[in-house]
Amino acid sequence: MTAPEALAATPAGEEPLLLRALRSEPLPRPPAWMMRQAGRYLPEYMAVRSTLSFLELCHDADLCCEVTLQPLRRFPFDAGIIFSDILLPLEAMGCPLTFGKGEGPRFPNPVRDRAAIAALKRIDPWRDLPSPLRALQLTTARAGVPILGFAGAPFTLACYLIEGEGSKDWHHTKSMMFTDPEAFGALLDRLAEMVGDHLQAQVEAGAACVQLFDTWAGALAPDDFRRWALPAARKALSKVRGAPTLYFTRDASPFLPWLAEIGADAIGLDWRADMAHARSVLGPHIPVQGNLDPQALAAPPAVVAEKVRAIISAAGPAGHVFNLGHGLVPSSPISGVHAALDAVRGWSWA
Amino acid sequence: MTAPEALAATPAGEEPLLLRALRSEPLPRPPAWMMRQAGRYLPEYMAVRSTLSFLELCHDADLCCEVTLQPLRRFPFDAGIIFSDILLPLEAMGCPLTFGKGEGPRFPNPVRDRAAIAALKRIDPWRDLPSPLRALQLTTARAGVPILGFAGAPFTLACYLIEGEGSKDWHHTKSMMFTDPEAFGALLDRLAEMVGDHLQAQVEAGAACVQLFDTWAGALAPDDFRRWALPAARKALSKVRGAPTLYFTRDASPFLPWLAEIGADAIGLDWRADMAHARSVLGPHIPVQGNLDPQALAAPPAVVAEKVRAIISAAGPAGHVFNLGHGLVPSSPISGVHAALDAVRGWSWA
Repeated sequence: MTAPEALAATPAGEEPLLLRALRSEPLPRPPAWMMRQAGRYLPEYMAVRSTLSFLELCHDADLCCEVTLQPLRRFPFDAGIIFSDILLPLEAMGCPLTFGKGEGPRFPNPVRDRAAIAALKRIDPWRDLPSPLRALQLTTARAGVPILGFAGAPFTLACYLIEGEGSKDWHHTKSMMFTDPEAFGALLDRLAEMVGDHLQAQVEAGAACVQLFDTWAGALAPDDFRRWALPAARKALSKVRGAPTLYFTRDASPFLPWLAEIGADAIGLDWRADMAHARSVLGPHIPVQGNLDPQALAAPPAVVAEKVRAIISAAGPAGHVFNLGHGLVPSSPISGVHAALDAVRGWSWA
Repeated sequence: MTAPEALAATPAGEEPLLLRALRSEPLPRPPAWMMRQAGRYLPEYMAVRSTLSFLELCHDADLCCEVTLQPLRRFPFDAGIIFSDILLPLEAMGCPLTFGKGEGPRFPNPVRDRAAIAALKRIDPWRDLPSPLRALQLTTARAGVPILGFAGAPFTLACYLIEGEGSKDWHHTKSMMFTDPEAFGALLDRLAEMVGDHLQAQVEAGAACVQLFDTWAGALAPDDFRRWALPAARKALSKVRGAPTLYFTRDASPFLPWLAEIGADAIGLDWRADMAHARSVLGPHIPVQGNLDPQALAAPPAVVAEKVRAIISAAGPAGHVFNLGHGLVPSSPISGVHAALDAVRGWSWA
């Protein structure tokens, strides 16, 4: 491994921009990191993955640390995010998980009735899911920038558990929600408790901030979002002490009027949200994160820079963490990541 | 075939509720129809499909008429929508189209460069794509309620043409958009012209109203939506004379502040849009259509009714067409369709 001095770092004696942005301090420029910045678009990540499966990697704390640090060697990010997967805790709860070649995740035994919900194991994160926690300990000891922890939000985890795999319409999930709301509520409760514990353990392990990914909440009509996804996410986040929290959903726009009720310290916006409109609906006191279209990184550098500057300008000088509006993808060009970061670091509100 | 008297019908001497709602007249109850109301959830549709392929059905005007009328025999809908597919005009433009068993549509020769765009044939709808027009003539002569025509919006058609199939991230589409905006603009122009002609021909064939489906516009960041999808849809709609127009996108919420600029007479809302919030952003003078979650039809009838009433109540007495927020799916229960229609027809603003 290369020496720590090769890593992106906050200048000595300064408080990380990420934490200042999450307190809505006016800053000369926003901090920047990118969702899934450790991943398949990086040849050094593919080199690690050539020797073992995705799940083997997730369960190897040393290698999780290594791939978390990889983008911090290559790019001047202001934060990192621990390499892991939102579905690992469900595996720890007793649900076998597989990732087929070129396929998404799959739970061969979907959770579709009360017996299956009751059979979910209660987990102690340090005992039952140590890899992301040990990886956080290793990584925060070496990284020069804040490292985020994360978890899947209860509704999104319930989607995968009930469906058994990804879905266009989440038919089984909604069937349970609409026809057996008591069982569905019990499942969300169990998941919210687990997620809260898992996030808090990550803070204990050194996470400077934790992000809740409610990827599929956007499958819900707003009244169902307010009844199910929102209170479950709030319950999970309410267990976190000692670090700021972020809530991200892939479809924030329909829910903007209610996102503040989740109780997160900041809201992550997907790329479809209009930054100025979102800030006006959320209110000026809620920091936001986002929200460049990941596919826009394929544009010429001047176009990338223009789009980045439009987002920063619309977000304003206080309470903005620059990010993509969704994760980097395998086809994301490294030159596009550089172009976006150059534009962020070249910005000055002063 | 059964006799016309078995069909849903507007009472004699009355103007159809659909057209009055689209003029924002206060009504005792909203008119109701459902996207994809002719389709695989109906055993009588499956019986027709058992003898021929989806594309063969689309090209048979008599059978298109028949399957359009099927739901009007079974349910008291206030409108029908002609059975067809948004991709047929692209086939007529010279792009071979296939539907594999259990798969989505596929264009084996995607349109990814200027030569392919230049090779797209200009079509005369009556000469080159007669089946939906003849089906409209046949259907409007028999149906007792207004029949809608429809088309895919230029951006959404471009997505399928460039990608060659459905996609999660529309990588090839956005690559062209970001790296060769001139070619992408030329493609949208060609499609907008074709779509406008196709919609106008449907009005001539008897469509009481036409709906533009911009299913995938929600893949775009708002600035790209305003630059590409919006003006292309506006251009297509501007060619329509003699019937009201509707614009539907599967993800309306991010774009609500700009949807009025499309120039449609009404806006279709997907199920994630909060009806009251959407109406307040769009303004009271723009009629809306929607927006029950199709999956909610699986709920007990009392829950379906409650959700329908909440939508009607939030929409208000003027300028609302009740619909789903997306199309019916093969698993949609017929009892749920009845429950929703009962709730609409039981409503009274008086």
